[in-house]
Amino acid sequence: MDEQPLETIETPALLLDPAKLERNIERMRAQLAEAGDGVVLRPHLKTAKSIEVARRVLGGSNGPITVSTLLEAERFAEAGITDILYAVGIAQAKLDRVIEIRRREIDLTIITDNLVAAEAIAAAARASGEPIPVLIEIDSDGHRGGVPPEDRDRLIAIARTLASGGAVPRGVMTHYGGSYDARSQAELGEAARRERETTLAAAATLRAAGFEAPVASIGSTPTALNTKDLDGITEVRAGVYHFFDLVMAGLGVCSIDEIALSVLATVIGHQQDKGWILVDAGWMAMSRDRGTANQAVDQGYGLVCDASGLPWPDLIMTSANQEHGIIAVRPGSGAVLPDLPVGTQLRILPNHACATASQFDAYHVLGPDGAVTGRWPRFNGW
Amino acid sequence: MDEQPLETIETPALLLDPAKLERNIERMRAQLAEAGDGVVLRPHLKTAKSIEVARRVLGGSNGPITVSTLLEAERFAEAGITDILYAVGIAQAKLDRVIEIRRREIDLTIITDNLVAAEAIAAAARASGEPIPVLIEIDSDGHRGGVPPEDRDRLIAIARTLASGGAVPRGVMTHYGGSYDARSQAELGEAARRERETTLAAAATLRAAGFEAPVASIGSTPTALNTKDLDGITEVRAGVYHFFDLVMAGLGVCSIDEIALSVLATVIGHQQDKGWILVDAGWMAMSRDRGTANQAVDQGYGLVCDASGLPWPDLIMTSANQEHGIIAVRPGSGAVLPDLPVGTQLRILPNHACATASQFDAYHVLGPDGAVTGRWPRFNGW
Repeated sequence: MDEQPLETIETPALLLDPAKLERNIERMRAQLAEAGDGVVLRPHLKTAKSIEVARRVLGGSNGPITVSTLLEAERFAEAGITDILYAVGIAQAKLDRVIEIRRREIDLTIITDNLVAAEAIAAAARASGEPIPVLIEIDSDGHRGGVPPEDRDRLIAIARTLASGGAVPRGVMTHYGGSYDARSQAELGEAARRERETTLAAAATLRAAGFEAPVASIGSTPTALNTKDLDGITEVRAGVYHFFDLVMAGLGVCSIDEIALSVLATVIGHQQDKGWILVDAGWMAMSRDRGTANQAVDQGYGLVCDASGLPWPDLIMTSANQEHGIIAVRPGSGAVLPDLPVGTQLRILPNHACATASQFDAYHVLGPDGAVTGRWPRFNGW
Repeated sequence: MDEQPLETIETPALLLDPAKLERNIERMRAQLAEAGDGVVLRPHLKTAKSIEVARRVLGGSNGPITVSTLLEAERFAEAGITDILYAVGIAQAKLDRVIEIRRREIDLTIITDNLVAAEAIAAAARASGEPIPVLIEIDSDGHRGGVPPEDRDRLIAIARTLASGGAVPRGVMTHYGGSYDARSQAELGEAARRERETTLAAAATLRAAGFEAPVASIGSTPTALNTKDLDGITEVRAGVYHFFDLVMAGLGVCSIDEIALSVLATVIGHQQDKGWILVDAGWMAMSRDRGTANQAVDQGYGLVCDASGLPWPDLIMTSANQEHGIIAVRPGSGAVLPDLPVGTQLRILPNHACATASQFDAYHVLGPDGAVTGRWPRFNGW
């Protein structure tokens, strides 16, 4: 597309700074090169849901990647990516679609943590002749799914069930989502240590039971960026590091300046006696995610920057309706409300990049001079 | 489309019960027929964003409607709707698009609450020759935008500015969003009374200043369903009543049984020691809306029903990741966790219909026997 000055972009719009994206990608590459000898990065593309972002993240290779929906798997497969992990416990009704994708010569791996699904996968592998590869999910942090680490019998039974139908127990995976609640670097380091150790123990259990189980997969942006020891781990999954967001900044995982994503909005009114600035971006644009609400610094629905991306001190979106955002100074901060007339464009940094990006069907991509130089489509839905 | 048994629908999916939709539509019609002599219902279609829902809500007429984005205005205009109110304070950069829609012989009305925008509208009306109709937004509840009711000078100045350029100050509008925080029927009745009185006073101010200002527009589902006096009001805007949701049920505005919208999900695992059931619908499907968090009954991310739509006592989605929901009994309720094996389909009622529906690009429409009989597209975005 032709270069468009920001003033001509209709609001709300999702802005992406590709220079920050590239720096964030490089930071994770360098971190893993230092921490892990030969460990593979399998970026999670559930945040980006974009072919153009995938190309930059993969640096020209055709994988591997992680996805959160089969729609992502299909779209990335069409774009030439051939090694895909679908990292949500499989539902039996989705197995036909999995097999269909695999038949396009895509090495699609799925996950499960239970025997009922393992039996369904085994039956589907037997009926189709597809050697469906499966990672068995391990619960490293007590936050979501996964086989409890101490339940070795269940782990082995799942692997046996899979293999009995010709499916392939390819190894184990975990996601230490509890890292998002860490309060210090020490807690992040401890999360990374436990994530690795739980995974290696489970992989060792499978191998001792006679399974090859070559894969030991871990992943979350906070743990990936806070570990110095990936010995034994074969791959790391992380996604939000492409863009970063206020939750990651609140965790100390990134700086505000590294956040590559923002929502462009326009001032549409004021309530002067209340110290409010109203903008045409509400929760439909920002999402309802309030991920910083329980952090040390609550950023409301987002931190407000000028149109060039420079944050005002303590200016946040304090509340949001569907298409209205209310901007005010952070309660108790004593900051001064800037004079922002009706018509002024603002950029709002999101709490949670995954949630905010999913409210839009495309990124408006910024050039070095701050104008919009491209439009990268996203694929939402399932 | 051919009828599809629910078991064949891939999850997550957004289900709509058209029989409940019709009953909810009829309830609002009957309520307004009783409360207001000749008052017009101008349904807000920001929740539905669907041509098929609009047809049912309008009962065959071609308007009037309310929208929250210009994309909605364009799509509904293409479908033959000719009288549209865009009820978000206009940004100057959107005026070209407004004029373009009006030139298709659509009576598109916009709103503002300030002089800067009024000047831009007047200039656009003058330059284009389009007599853009404008409702001036009044702040009836201190929750969002709008001219403060006591600021008659500003109200009149906005009307004069509009008229000076050939735009038409068609009247006043307000939204008593504070009604969503009401704690009793008495508070809802008081909200409805204040909404009406503020609006009539502002309309009277404009008329006394010499403007025709024929329109006095109010609206919110809770106030519309809790008023017996609409004397002087010309139109009522309301939207969420089409579907209702748990927030409305918590307000006492509807019963759980009237909620027409739910998210179909599949059980993908359990954490038995924690009493958790994991499903393949997380916040990407439910949205991050936690609108019941501050109500008397906190419904988590949604109330869980069986596949036929019958709720289990106190079974809710207690937490959500992007594509994972964790279902458990409501803390402190003492309810018993039902035995729901992996593969079981569930239906989850949403906190906030507007937010949950916006996570999907279509409704799966249920037939009388519970199978899916149609797919109604939605249009998200701007």
